[in-house]
Amino acid sequence: MDKKKMRYTVEGGGEVSPAVIKRLPRYFRYLRELIRNGKLRISSGELSEMMHVTASQIRQDLNCFGGFGQQGYGYNVNYLYAKICEILGVGEGFRAVMIGAGNLGRALVRSPMFEKRGVDIVAMFDVAPELVGSSVAGVNVLHVDGLERFCEENVVDIAVLTLPKEYATEVAERLVKIGVAGIWNFTSKELVCPEPVVVENVHIGDSLMTLCYELRCRSLQEEEQ
Amino acid sequence: MDKKKMRYTVEGGGEVSPAVIKRLPRYFRYLRELIRNGKLRISSGELSEMMHVTASQIRQDLNCFGGFGQQGYGYNVNYLYAKICEILGVGEGFRAVMIGAGNLGRALVRSPMFEKRGVDIVAMFDVAPELVGSSVAGVNVLHVDGLERFCEENVVDIAVLTLPKEYATEVAERLVKIGVAGIWNFTSKELVCPEPVVVENVHIGDSLMTLCYELRCRSLQEEEQ
Repeated sequence: MDKKKMRYTVEGGGEVSPAVIKRLPRYFRYLRELIRNGKLRISSGELSEMMHVTASQIRQDLNCFGGFGQQGYGYNVNYLYAKICEILGVGEGFRAVMIGAGNLGRALVRSPMFEKRGVDIVAMFDVAPELVGSSVAGVNVLHVDGLERFCEENVVDIAVLTLPKEYATEVAERLVKIGVAGIWNFTSKELVCPEPVVVENVHIGDSLMTLCYELRCRSLQEEEQ
Repeated sequence: MDKKKMRYTVEGGGEVSPAVIKRLPRYFRYLRELIRNGKLRISSGELSEMMHVTASQIRQDLNCFGGFGQQGYGYNVNYLYAKICEILGVGEGFRAVMIGAGNLGRALVRSPMFEKRGVDIVAMFDVAPELVGSSVAGVNVLHVDGLERFCEENVVDIAVLTLPKEYATEVAERLVKIGVAGIWNFTSKELVCPEPVVVENVHIGDSLMTLCYELRCRSLQEEEQ
């Protein structure tokens, strides 16, 4: 086993599976809602009903990180939320730049998504003369030529790519060279970067296609009946 | 086995697995790129290298739908693309409304995503007086009070939810009642609708959290070294 990847280990020594990690943000969302609703504690049964997964799945997932529950009491919502936040790096104060100040980039910067997850957007970059020099939700739009210099002078952990896909590979190479640790890629170009750079590709359109596939299957079934 | 779900079956009789279906939009994206680059045929080996999956995986995936390749020749790119489009319902002419004409809704409507996938956005709905009556990328923004009437008078297959999450459940219930077949949900509220309504929940922020998790793991490793 690669010791470098062993930060979180299941009791007994195994690595926490990617499937469990993928589920953690869902706990984050549900716990936020519970807190908003003033709920102080919750049993795995209640959480299970709310999240449409089995109580045993929940216990198993959380046991990977040490449990956090108490027999007969359930989970302390605030404590569990704090723990999930810690595991997910919400309190790390990650700083991000957004490359591409077009429609999607501007919509993302204006959404509360980053703030909720403790990520600070420190600058946007673009090439369009009508955008460079402007600001969106208080974030300045700079020319992408100044990317290297900005990243030398400021701590930047993450780059969010919302630029046209033709430029994705070139910009990603520049980001890797500068030493940006994480790339959140919204272009339809799939990026593979050398270790230890972390890349998350988001393909919004794929989910629309899955929906269309299901709709087509349903309509074919109806025709058959 | 549920016969209703058997539209696509693997040779031998099994159902096509959700994992295969989830991978189809990726083929769609890569094939579009090949077509754009004027590539007429491709071997499973070349496709494998491009997509970072094994050639045997590709053959297995495509065999679920009848193969489409020829021994020693590979795949005809245009033919394979047409087949994938057919399977994914790209030529079905699905019609969608968008509920929520805020930043995200407007950014999505302006993107080429829907057109590329053969989905036509026929109207947007909102409640804000400054938005109702306007148009975004040629799509009219109507008041959400008129949703039922619009869907009676027009064919609407899909509703895209980009409204505040507090209203997601209520609007989804209205959509189910009207008979809208598919819901593409961008709110952080997870929706579960009664069969046969198809729901795809998109949680963009979850992917940011996975990225932050990985970044935190890397930085903890570095501290240890």
